[in-house]
Amino acid sequence: MKKILVIHGPNLNLLGTREVGVYGNTTIADIDEALNKSAKVKNVFLEIMQSNHEGEIVEKIGQAKGKFDAIIINPAAYTHTSIAIRDAISAVNIPTVEVHISNIYAREEFRHTSLIAPVAKGQVSGFGKSSYLLGLDAAIGLIDK
Amino acid sequence: MKKILVIHGPNLNLLGTREVGVYGNTTIADIDEALNKSAKVKNVFLEIMQSNHEGEIVEKIGQAKGKFDAIIINPAAYTHTSIAIRDAISAVNIPTVEVHISNIYAREEFRHTSLIAPVAKGQVSGFGKSSYLLGLDAAIGLIDK
Amino acid sequence: MKKILVIHGPNLNLLGTREVGVYGNTTIADIDEALNKSAKVKNVFLEIMQSNHEGEIVEKIGQAKGKFDAIIINPAAYTHTSIAIRDAISAVNIPTVEVHISNIYAREEFRHTSLIAPVAKGQVSGFGKSSYLLGLDAAIGLIDK
Amino acid sequence: MKKILVIHGPNLNLLGTREVGVYGNTTIADIDEALNKSAKVKNVFLEIMQSNHEGEIVEKIGQAKGKFDAIIINPAAYTHTSIAIRDAISAVNIPTVEVHISNIYAREEFRHTSLIAPVAKGQVSGFGKSSYLLGLDAAIGLIDK
Amino acid sequence: MKKILVIHGPNLNLLGTREVGVYGNTTIADIDEALNKSAKVKNVFLEIMQSNHEGEIVEKIGQAKGKFDAIIINPAAYTHTSIAIRDAISAVNIPTVEVHISNIYAREEFRHTSLIAPVAKGQVSGFGKSSYLLGLDAAIGLIDK
Amino acid sequence: MKKILVIHGPNLNLLGTREVGVYGNTTIADIDEALNKSAKVKNVFLEIMQSNHEGEIVEKIGQAKGKFDAIIINPAAYTHTSIAIRDAISAVNIPTVEVHISNIYAREEFRHTSLIAPVAKGQVSGFGKSSYLLGLDAAIGLIDK
Amino acid sequence: MKKILVIHGPNLNLLGTREVGVYGNTTIADIDEALNKSAKVKNVFLEIMQSNHEGEIVEKIGQAKGKFDAIIINPAAYTHTSIAIRDAISAVNIPTVEVHISNIYAREEFRHTSLIAPVAKGQVSGFGKSSYLLGLDAAIGLIDK
Amino acid sequence: MKKILVIHGPNLNLLGTREVGVYGNTTIADIDEALNKSAKVKNVFLEIMQSNHEGEIVEKIGQAKGKFDAIIINPAAYTHTSIAIRDAISAVNIPTVEVHISNIYAREEFRHTSLIAPVAKGQVSGFGKSSYLLGLDAAIGLIDK
Amino acid sequence: MKKILVIHGPNLNLLGTREVGVYGNTTIADIDEALNKSAKVKNVFLEIMQSNHEGEIVEKIGQAKGKFDAIIINPAAYTHTSIAIRDAISAVNIPTVEVHISNIYAREEFRHTSLIAPVAKGQVSGFGKSSYLLGLDAAIGLIDK
Amino acid sequence: MKKILVIHGPNLNLLGTREVGVYGNTTIADIDEALNKSAKVKNVFLEIMQSNHEGEIVEKIGQAKGKFDAIIINPAAYTHTSIAIRDAISAVNIPTVEVHISNIYAREEFRHTSLIAPVAKGQVSGFGKSSYLLGLDAAIGLIDK
Amino acid sequence: MKKILVIHGPNLNLLGTREVGVYGNTTIADIDEALNKSAKVKNVFLEIMQSNHEGEIVEKIGQAKGKFDAIIINPAAYTHTSIAIRDAISAVNIPTVEVHISNIYAREEFRHTSLIAPVAKGQVSGFGKSSYLLGLDAAIGLIDK
Amino acid sequence: MKKILVIHGPNLNLLGTREVGVYGNTTIADIDEALNKSAKVKNVFLEIMQSNHEGEIVEKIGQAKGKFDAIIINPAAYTHTSIAIRDAISAVNIPTVEVHISNIYAREEFRHTSLIAPVAKGQVSGFGKSSYLLGLDAAIGLIDK
Repeated sequence: MKKILVIHGPNLNLLGTREVGVYGNTTIADIDEALNKSAKVKNVFLEIMQSNHEGEIVEKIGQAKGKFDAIIINPAAYTHTSIAIRDAISAVNIPTVEVHISNIYAREEFRHTSLIAPVAKGQVSGFGKSSYLLGLDAAIGLIDK
Repeated sequence: MKKILVIHGPNLNLLGTREVGVYGNTTIADIDEALNKSAKVKNVFLEIMQSNHEGEIVEKIGQAKGKFDAIIINPAAYTHTSIAIRDAISAVNIPTVEVHISNIYAREEFRHTSLIAPVAKGQVSGFGKSSYLLGLDAAIGLIDK
Repeated sequence: MKKILVIHGPNLNLLGTREVGVYGNTTIADIDEALNKSAKVKNVFLEIMQSNHEGEIVEKIGQAKGKFDAIIINPAAYTHTSIAIRDAISAVNIPTVEVHISNIYAREEFRHTSLIAPVAKGQVSGFGKSSYLLGLDAAIGLIDK
Repeated sequence: MKKILVIHGPNLNLLGTREVGVYGNTTIADIDEALNKSAKVKNVFLEIMQSNHEGEIVEKIGQAKGKFDAIIINPAAYTHTSIAIRDAISAVNIPTVEVHISNIYAREEFRHTSLIAPVAKGQVSGFGKSSYLLGLDAAIGLIDK
Repeated sequence: MKKILVIHGPNLNLLGTREVGVYGNTTIADIDEALNKSAKVKNVFLEIMQSNHEGEIVEKIGQAKGKFDAIIINPAAYTHTSIAIRDAISAVNIPTVEVHISNIYAREEFRHTSLIAPVAKGQVSGFGKSSYLLGLDAAIGLIDK
Repeated sequence: MKKILVIHGPNLNLLGTREVGVYGNTTIADIDEALNKSAKVKNVFLEIMQSNHEGEIVEKIGQAKGKFDAIIINPAAYTHTSIAIRDAISAVNIPTVEVHISNIYAREEFRHTSLIAPVAKGQVSGFGKSSYLLGLDAAIGLIDK
Repeated sequence: MKKILVIHGPNLNLLGTREVGVYGNTTIADIDEALNKSAKVKNVFLEIMQSNHEGEIVEKIGQAKGKFDAIIINPAAYTHTSIAIRDAISAVNIPTVEVHISNIYAREEFRHTSLIAPVAKGQVSGFGKSSYLLGLDAAIGLIDK
Repeated sequence: MKKILVIHGPNLNLLGTREVGVYGNTTIADIDEALNKSAKVKNVFLEIMQSNHEGEIVEKIGQAKGKFDAIIINPAAYTHTSIAIRDAISAVNIPTVEVHISNIYAREEFRHTSLIAPVAKGQVSGFGKSSYLLGLDAAIGLIDK
Repeated sequence: MKKILVIHGPNLNLLGTREVGVYGNTTIADIDEALNKSAKVKNVFLEIMQSNHEGEIVEKIGQAKGKFDAIIINPAAYTHTSIAIRDAISAVNIPTVEVHISNIYAREEFRHTSLIAPVAKGQVSGFGKSSYLLGLDAAIGLIDK
Repeated sequence: MKKILVIHGPNLNLLGTREVGVYGNTTIADIDEALNKSAKVKNVFLEIMQSNHEGEIVEKIGQAKGKFDAIIINPAAYTHTSIAIRDAISAVNIPTVEVHISNIYAREEFRHTSLIAPVAKGQVSGFGKSSYLLGLDAAIGLIDK
Repeated sequence: MKKILVIHGPNLNLLGTREVGVYGNTTIADIDEALNKSAKVKNVFLEIMQSNHEGEIVEKIGQAKGKFDAIIINPAAYTHTSIAIRDAISAVNIPTVEVHISNIYAREEFRHTSLIAPVAKGQVSGFGKSSYLLGLDAAIGLIDK
Repeated sequence: MKKILVIHGPNLNLLGTREVGVYGNTTIADIDEALNKSAKVKNVFLEIMQSNHEGEIVEKIGQAKGKFDAIIINPAAYTHTSIAIRDAISAVNIPTVEVHISNIYAREEFRHTSLIAPVAKGQVSGFGKSSYLLGLDAAIGLIDK
């Protein structure tokens, strides 16, 4: 059975209550439910975490070695500032998919640069909740390869 | 029945023969076959074109209004230089998904900027042939919304 | 009788159907009619073309030598990316007027730089359809000089 | 009867005596005469001022509200340095046409950026004295709209 | 009795009539009245001036030495362009408070840099009319120190 | 009764012992005492926290929704690096005042840019302990509005 | 017998009539004649094309695989803007020599950067018609190796 | 007896398992053992910590005042992003030596800038485990001075 | 008899009272006296003005044509911001010497760029009062040529 | 008989022993022999020097006036740092050909800018030893003109 | 017996007499003595040179191949400007240690970039004379490996 | 008797034969004669040298300590590239005057930055031969102080 770690970055616990114009009113619970449902169908084990702490995310990734076959991460604000998360991903060398709810390239200039992208296998962004579901499919595809 | 236009940008006709280290040996015919198979299952009409001409792509998009419900485009080299394709997409206002075979953010500096991204609904990149298939799912999702 | 070549750049065939908030609902046919009417009064021969192809525009300008006394060009998206059109204009050495429907300086950053401006005699921008009519007057003035 | 304010910026009092290679030998009196003649024909009231003082120009624009239907301004050197004139124009919210005698885009690098352009309705530049006359036509067109 | 000089920079005479969406409908007279009322309570002498002329502001500051204990200045557009005002402030060496009605960091890029800030003791910005009143308290605090 | 959250960012626990030449010898306890005294007079409830952890600050802001009417934050070093705190502030949409003890514009280049400023309502900086007290007045004013 | 493809980029059809001060009065026919004469002596088969279309050049290079042993290209204006031609060259992996008639490093700033140079084997520039002849010798040398 | 604090930054807990090509297979335990052995010989007391949390490192440094005579820090990824750690070091004013296992100047561009270096007394980088040992000698030398 | 115009720019009226560490305690009266004494010896007529107004300086230069053989200007803060003064100098085409009391290249970054230098014949800077006297000698030399 | 000076810049004495992956195993003696053989055939006198000293190269060029009809120079590392060599070339005004063994545009970023190129007549780069031979032909062509 | 070449770059002959505030009063003779003493203990042969000439240093390194097992270099000012020394080091491929007396990262901006660092094995900087002694230890360690 | 060292930088030996349009036809001998004549009158001892070698200039300055009271240097091309000369000047701490024959700020961009300026006492540039004579006067003034 494939094992995938899903990481929600900072402020995503506020999703659905937060700037509805940009992010819609889907909550993180909605996303997790949809992910779990899809994972069940595809016979995949998921562990899902949310953290506002850069250090916690770094640690979780550091411990993922040998426990997970792939990582799905929405680094949120840390996308643009965290070299530590980038180093963690490249250290454990587990195939990683970067997802974003909104199209970051259509927002402020400083959200156009991702420090995570160069060490991820690929990105899915701009499709709301579906970004995670497409990301799950992509992660499964990477494991199969 | 949903109608989707798929556009392969410049040099993609060389896929599979071209820099195998970067792009793998999948050909454009392989991609089109996989897309058509998936479209059949999901009851979607696809029109697929490949062009090396910026102007041809601009014209095709300009004529898409009223004929297609979504566009999937791999703009290849024009991703980084064509304001004309960008203007065409925002002119026809059809939901557009940008796809890339390789992870463009892990390549040369000048491939990190996409002029297309800000007017696309979302991007899928880095998953090889699967980028197109995930892009098809994403496009269908956009139409359903 | 003075002869003037009018060139509409990429996507202008979509005018009037396209982003009405920015460009208004004037079509390219409206503009051409107004131009022709004004040209008749002022006893000027006009040839008008629209093209989405950078190469076609380059060729048309290259062939204009000896056939036209002035050029009016709305290079649209190619304003910001085409050194080839710039080279063509400076090669044929025919007085050229650059026109824009909208005020490009009040739009996105990347539309603020014109590669064409340094080789044009002058610019008229921001007056909608009237930009073309003022441009026609300006071109006639240049020929008279 | 339409009322239009015409502002000549710094050093334009020297026109005709100044760098003839760049600006020609037309004087500011020649321009004003041509403007007044054209205004008479088109039944427009003109007030014309010249000032070398940034503050004076700011004040004149500030007092223009309710007195003028449009402004024609050649900000000369202040084009590139005055945020104060820019703020004045956007404060009074009177349609404004920016004119330049020479093609500023074919001159030194630091003359390529206009702080005024984003708050003007449009620009006419590069046609010598005719820039003003075309600007007058443009201003009348803006009022009619 | 403490003596404080208050300087309103260019275009502030238009306040209240000007872009109400950005600045609200408070006029400069409203601000001056509120300042005078607060000064009375705190037993402070105020001299208030408004000028659109960079030179006038420079001169007023130059003459302030020995006459005033503190300066409150809203340099408006000159915030971003005037090294002369900056030099005047650092020449007279009177504690100076910079105030802004709107939050300049939430506006256009070119309004993010203040040439005045490095020579001011502190800044208050973004609180509308209250920016001045808080600035007055701050200035009194500086004198007391 | 108004409720306001006060956040001291990283290293502020060292205040008073730290680089006295730059920050003076006021301690964080002095500031809190002054804030509480002023809050009592103005009948405001204050909760004050200090944290060196970016994640803790993000979480505290995320939980502030519905519990506090305004936030006063001195983000210290995170002013210049934390998009996560910025996102938290714009997510909860509580009026926020940014304060700084020293004049950040008179210090090193990299302290001149604030990621927080564009989502704050206003800033007060450079007045030592008084920056907080003025910030408290500003916050009360924002709630009253 | 060695086979070499020679590509003249945009506007080179105007050579000899065009800005004689910069390019001299050699025509493209003169160059082709000289190339053919030299090729005959060295027993090389040449195919020569000129195109103003970026797409056409991309296609021609894409089809060169297996048909030609080397490519000589003067990309003219596309030197500085075409990632598509660059990608085509690196896709077909045929040794390519970049030639320029004038010394591009002694001209405008935007002509100093070549997108083609990093994928070419070498460059020859600044020697007028002789740039092509030296380029032919260089290409033969590359094939021999 | 001299007391020195040694801080290992984020992801260093993974050392030896992590990208062996870049960092070798020395583990953090190996380094600590070597440090302790050397410290014993030189009669120095060492406290060693590893943390993935920026805030924890900031706090530890803040508490070091009066307890330690020198600090040795390998800030890892935080080298390039943490102004908070920089401020902590300059606040406690304890002589600090920055160490790096690999030569950061021979790696990616974004690793060439150290925010820590300007407040450290010196740096040792590129000698693998020996960087720490040389750093220890350097720190002792600083205390002796 | 040679006639030379001497212009002191903004804030120079404060000289001697102003930042003595940077500028010394020479006053503008001292400089004028020394200039007049030297001019007498060398049989030169001097007119000296000081102005804080950019516009006044522009006008004075505009009127200098035919009245003066050379200009000596210390543009002070306007050195770095005034294109208007630059245009005035190049319009009247009178040989101009730029002088500065302090070494502007050893001060803040934004004082390193002079907009005046390219249109001046030469500069003298860094010698205190002597900068003017050396400038006077230089101006006389220019007239003799 | 034509006379040509050939200059090998710094470190070229190590050629053939040096980084063979980049430069091949041709030695400087091999190149000189090939150059002399070709020169003999074409009846040209060659003087060849190698120097690691910037000053020596500057002096040699300075003395070349009247003695040589053309210069061939491989400035090696000095290509990117020596304004002195550039000034020497433009001072003596002898037609100069710049050659490089490797394709400098396919190497590190800091090797992409040539300070010599703007004052050379043309460049040949990327063809190994043949770069020199083609450069010799180019130099002869320049003299013939 | 290990053989190590020690190179002192430009101006180091002035050490001890030079800016004592920055460099202390150690002379180059003191350093050489300390190096020789340490080398004796460790049974290493040292050759030490000092040169102000970039070319001399380049030559010495070029001749070091086969004669020395390691190089210790303090490139001083050439650290930041010499690509020639960099090329020499990478040409001879002898393990090289870069040393600096002062902490170059706490000094002027232009001293923060080292062209030598990417080709050196490691750096030691900021420890005065001890930088050399630590560098010797490091060099020995490199040879042992 | 005052003693002053005069240094002519690279290529100045070519003066008078070199680009006459920029530098005039004065030779270095003319300058030296004028300098000696002026020195005699003012009872100053001069030593004059010219060198194309950066290292020689560095050495000469290093030996000047105790022998000369001031230095006059025209660093020519080394102005923009030599940190070594800068370090030498600040090491010997002798008052230094930088001179330039032409106005370097009116020439190419890369000649606008002087590495020498921040350590010189002042600059004189743009007055041809007189730059040196004015520089001599300036140097004497510095010694008198």
